[in-house]
Amino acid sequence: MSYTETNALPPQITISEYLFHRLKQLHIETIFGLSGEYNMPLIDKLYQVHNLRWAGNANELNAAYAADGYARLKGLGVLITTFGVGELSALNGVAGSFAEHVGLLHIVGMPPTSAQTKQLLLHHTLGNGDYSVFHRIASDIAVYNTVIDDTDLCFQEVDKCITLAWMEQRPVYMGMPVNQVNLLVDSKFLDIPLDLDMFENATEVNSEITNKILQKIYKCKHPAIVVDACTIRHECIDEVEEFCRRTKFPVFVTPMGKGAINENTPHFGGVFMGSLSSPSVREVVDFADFIIVIGSMLSEFSTSTFHFVFKVKDSVLLFSDLVKIKNSVYANIHIKPLMKSLLHSLDESKIKYIFEEAPSMILPKTKIPDDVLLRQEWVWNEISHWFREGDIIITEIGTSAFGINQTRFPNEAQGISQSLWGSSGYSLGACLGTSFAIQEFEREHNHNFHRHTQNVEKHRVILFVGDGAFQLTMQELSTIIRWNLTPYIFVLNNEGYSVDRFLHPEANASYYDIQPWNYLDLMATFNAKNYETKKIVTVGDFRDMVQDPLFAINDKIRMVEILLPSTDVPQALVDTWKLEKEKHKRPSEYSVSPYLDSDDHSQSSAFVSPAEIETDRKRARINTP
Amino acid sequence: MSYTETNALPPQITISEYLFHRLKQLHIETIFGLSGEYNMPLIDKLYQVHNLRWAGNANELNAAYAADGYARLKGLGVLITTFGVGELSALNGVAGSFAEHVGLLHIVGMPPTSAQTKQLLLHHTLGNGDYSVFHRIASDIAVYNTVIDDTDLCFQEVDKCITLAWMEQRPVYMGMPVNQVNLLVDSKFLDIPLDLDMFENATEVNSEITNKILQKIYKCKHPAIVVDACTIRHECIDEVEEFCRRTKFPVFVTPMGKGAINENTPHFGGVFMGSLSSPSVREVVDFADFIIVIGSMLSEFSTSTFHFVFKVKDSVLLFSDLVKIKNSVYANIHIKPLMKSLLHSLDESKIKYIFEEAPSMILPKTKIPDDVLLRQEWVWNEISHWFREGDIIITEIGTSAFGINQTRFPNEAQGISQSLWGSSGYSLGACLGTSFAIQEFEREHNHNFHRHTQNVEKHRVILFVGDGAFQLTMQELSTIIRWNLTPYIFVLNNEGYSVDRFLHPEANASYYDIQPWNYLDLMATFNAKNYETKKIVTVGDFRDMVQDPLFAINDKIRMVEILLPSTDVPQALVDTWKLEKEKHKRPSEYSVSPYLDSDDHSQSSAFVSPAEIETDRKRARINTP
Repeated sequence: MSYTETNALPPQITISEYLFHRLKQLHIETIFGLSGEYNMPLIDKLYQVHNLRWAGNANELNAAYAADGYARLKGLGVLITTFGVGELSALNGVAGSFAEHVGLLHIVGMPPTSAQTKQLLLHHTLGNGDYSVFHRIASDIAVYNTVIDDTDLCFQEVDKCITLAWMEQRPVYMGMPVNQVNLLVDSKFLDIPLDLDMFENATEVNSEITNKILQKIYKCKHPAIVVDACTIRHECIDEVEEFCRRTKFPVFVTPMGKGAINENTPHFGGVFMGSLSSPSVREVVDFADFIIVIGSMLSEFSTSTFHFVFKVKDSVLLFSDLVKIKNSVYANIHIKPLMKSLLHSLDESKIKYIFEEAPSMILPKTKIPDDVLLRQEWVWNEISHWFREGDIIITEIGTSAFGINQTRFPNEAQGISQSLWGSSGYSLGACLGTSFAIQEFEREHNHNFHRHTQNVEKHRVILFVGDGAFQLTMQELSTIIRWNLTPYIFVLNNEGYSVDRFLHPEANASYYDIQPWNYLDLMATFNAKNYETKKIVTVGDFRDMVQDPLFAINDKIRMVEILLPSTDVPQALVDTWKLEKEKHKRPSEYSVSPYLDSDDHSQSSAFVSPAEIETDRKRARINTP
Repeated sequence: MSYTETNALPPQITISEYLFHRLKQLHIETIFGLSGEYNMPLIDKLYQVHNLRWAGNANELNAAYAADGYARLKGLGVLITTFGVGELSALNGVAGSFAEHVGLLHIVGMPPTSAQTKQLLLHHTLGNGDYSVFHRIASDIAVYNTVIDDTDLCFQEVDKCITLAWMEQRPVYMGMPVNQVNLLVDSKFLDIPLDLDMFENATEVNSEITNKILQKIYKCKHPAIVVDACTIRHECIDEVEEFCRRTKFPVFVTPMGKGAINENTPHFGGVFMGSLSSPSVREVVDFADFIIVIGSMLSEFSTSTFHFVFKVKDSVLLFSDLVKIKNSVYANIHIKPLMKSLLHSLDESKIKYIFEEAPSMILPKTKIPDDVLLRQEWVWNEISHWFREGDIIITEIGTSAFGINQTRFPNEAQGISQSLWGSSGYSLGACLGTSFAIQEFEREHNHNFHRHTQNVEKHRVILFVGDGAFQLTMQELSTIIRWNLTPYIFVLNNEGYSVDRFLHPEANASYYDIQPWNYLDLMATFNAKNYETKKIVTVGDFRDMVQDPLFAINDKIRMVEILLPSTDVPQALVDTWKLEKEKHKRPSEYSVSPYLDSDDHSQSSAFVSPAEIETDRKRARINTP
């Protein structure tokens, strides 16, 4: 039976229902946002499509974060806001999706087209008759930007928006004037599925690149594979797994790529963080004669302030839609088809490299007495043992994002963090979004996370967030409670903005301090019904928690407050600081943050300027149909 | 003694300290925002200038709302955010300041200029080497947009930014790269005060307009004055008061202009809300033969969906920098100098109009039994009696913004609401900002609210906010608590988004519902020390509260939850709904909101299209030095 028959649709439906049916076809079942003046008629239609739900977030920025988190598992997130006040509130979240390659469809309910043409003053405008200003603002952070209009082909515009967001893994902006919500379209077009197959690369170029890469693979003696976040975004997890397995090359993962590969193989060497990598990692990567970075999303954290210096002769960087082989750049080459052709042509018998077991990450097991107060270092080492297969581990920018790099992920665990865009408060919204996604996967017994088939039935959503960051977006906890979702929320209470305090110590800096809340009381304040809270102060408290089999079952929402000293930070952060102090030795009045630019990256032949990448992209961009 | 001598400044200081000293000279003593990667060195300098304080908000959007509220009393609000993630989070708040003519200086801590020129990938970027994107985005909602650079005249740029924001009462964007924070400038320039005197109008044009207006004033028989919000923004309160007093014309105030005039004079006729005005108001305004609107900021609420139809022959609209006399438009005419010249030339003896006492607003005094549950109508009528001289009354968009129009403001009371931009959640941030401002006024015994001299020593800050709107920005309550500020926060708990529910009733609309919180428990959760909470359910509860003399003293933070039925809305909202139903009679599937455009405004000869106004502004704009 066709889709229209199965769903008993009449010959004509509104464009709004068409839109929601398309989303349902892709199993996008939770829609995020806030109702507002110009989008209520659209949201009404959502309720008419079976199995879709309106999340009803507490504010628009949190809604954007939630849609982003959802998209990282499901492949697409959908956000509905209202003209002006709503869409601008969400902007920072949408920009984060743009920066980190996340597929987001941002639908903005707009005034009726008649108001726009007459340039009348309406609620939520800047008062100057300019209705296109918000649209213009959005165009800088979207790959496509449109307003639904009364034409015969408006349904194609809807298809285009969804397809582009999914394929490009970037935000798309779709304006929906309130008086176009009921445009009628033929429902039969829903019977033609959207074409979301992978891009095709130009055959000749694809072959040329494939051959070049294979030559290097066959020739090298000291290789290394580095897997980065775009592997996840552009659905290459299976291809990368096969590539690693067949080449047997030592493989490393960047902080943002954590979860892209199975960390429990003998080939896994650890987290690559540029100069901050552990000595055993640096030993392999720095002295490799060939490095291939798959799914490259260069980020300061991943590469620790541009110390992406390879003392190598040969490097290959595979971005989402561009390849860099040493100094040559091939634009418009998509990663998934390239990986497929590499795998197709790969002949393992020609590989000269002989696998040597990479040094494994050592997890300390020293027995510390129960009454000792907690320290970051110990917590991050210990929590590894509590993680399970299939866990979705979300970390907030700050000490959590640094600390998680010391942990070993179990098989099929996925990491989520916003280390490139780095917006404090993102993680709680993402926790909500991923919780919805996991609920849907489990309900449908569908384990295709963004087309990567999982072999795990159950997934827990686990969040680590600092107290400072928690305060920015805390009301989304209320939405999690309202929907009876069951994540673990670990609030690391170290009395404020610890990373800032550590990196930029000043005598008078009360701006690192925040109002101390009774975080665990929020459950009762927000009227949670089925929940558990814990306050963890000593090593013994922590042990009791992680050894409790009932605690390990995600059958209720849990909030755990972990008390840590205010200047205690993970080792990776200490290393950053030490490194920058040695390098810069600037006069103290500059108070330079270790995040700042260093002057010596230009030595690297492997260094890629993002501006160069972007220029190449623009030169070769072909409009997708 | 000069400023530099009084403050014992060395011959050279950093540009950052220069900036903060300039703000201190203007008595701008609280700076809003969040610390972040690129602005910490700048915020450090704030701590070096005596008497300035860093608010340390919970998130950037709330910080922008707070700066806006502060600016409405002090004339300028200052917001510091960080590049990308911070500035974009604040964008919606800054846009609101732009729309509603509020002077805001938005300082954005940026990456070092070397990073920008080399287009390297840094934290908080979109990953495409484009560092100017956020700057471009901001230019649509600022009257001036600059980045501080290493030049001899950088201090002039700082002066220019502050001056423009103050004079134009619009946002100004100032980028501060982190490596320019310590540029040295000569401190002696601080001894030359900023020139913030009013604009001058071109003499001939000013005279021409003055004469035209005076002719109408002398000739008319049935006049009306309507006072709107730009009177407050552009410091014309004293001029308007004198104008009303000397002409003795009936005077009305728009909802957003509430507080601009003394409502306790015999000339005051009530709140003008277009067709929603009470019959006594409409009787005067609709049939006037001459209307002068002073400080016009046309808004849908003020004019109830464009029913700004005057059956008049003569109308004069004074905008902040433009005058419309019937169909002629005079651009670049600033309101304050024009008012001054009107007053200078006005000869009351030539006025033909004879004052007839305008019908007074009737406040019902029926005695309702104590155990009756509350209704909006009753609450808004009763609260008038509790208001005092000098109260700052803040209302959130929603039932509060409608309901407040039924109240009578005491002398020197000021109203604050964001009815034009209409961003839900604004009011709690504004409450924080105004509380800081009031504290500063009282500490300095300075009663110059934005150059309007108050005759009242004490001011209470009073907030009315719906439960739905409260949830969007609720963490700013924590900042209010942290600073021991003492506003009254009335949370109108009507179980969700009541205005939406009322105007757009749908069977399945769970999107009006919100998670029910135990609002009063937030005080303890946020660790408040000196506070009082009340839950008001019956008429008797309310009476006890408003009759309690101790409750009336603002010596602690107070949170009062007022329980109201979910579809009970103020009368003005019922009227809106009835009016639109009569007018539109559209098919039910459109589910048209009464906020939407009607088709018949074009009949009005007095109607002004904002686009026309803006075009005229642009044509005549002269760059301010």
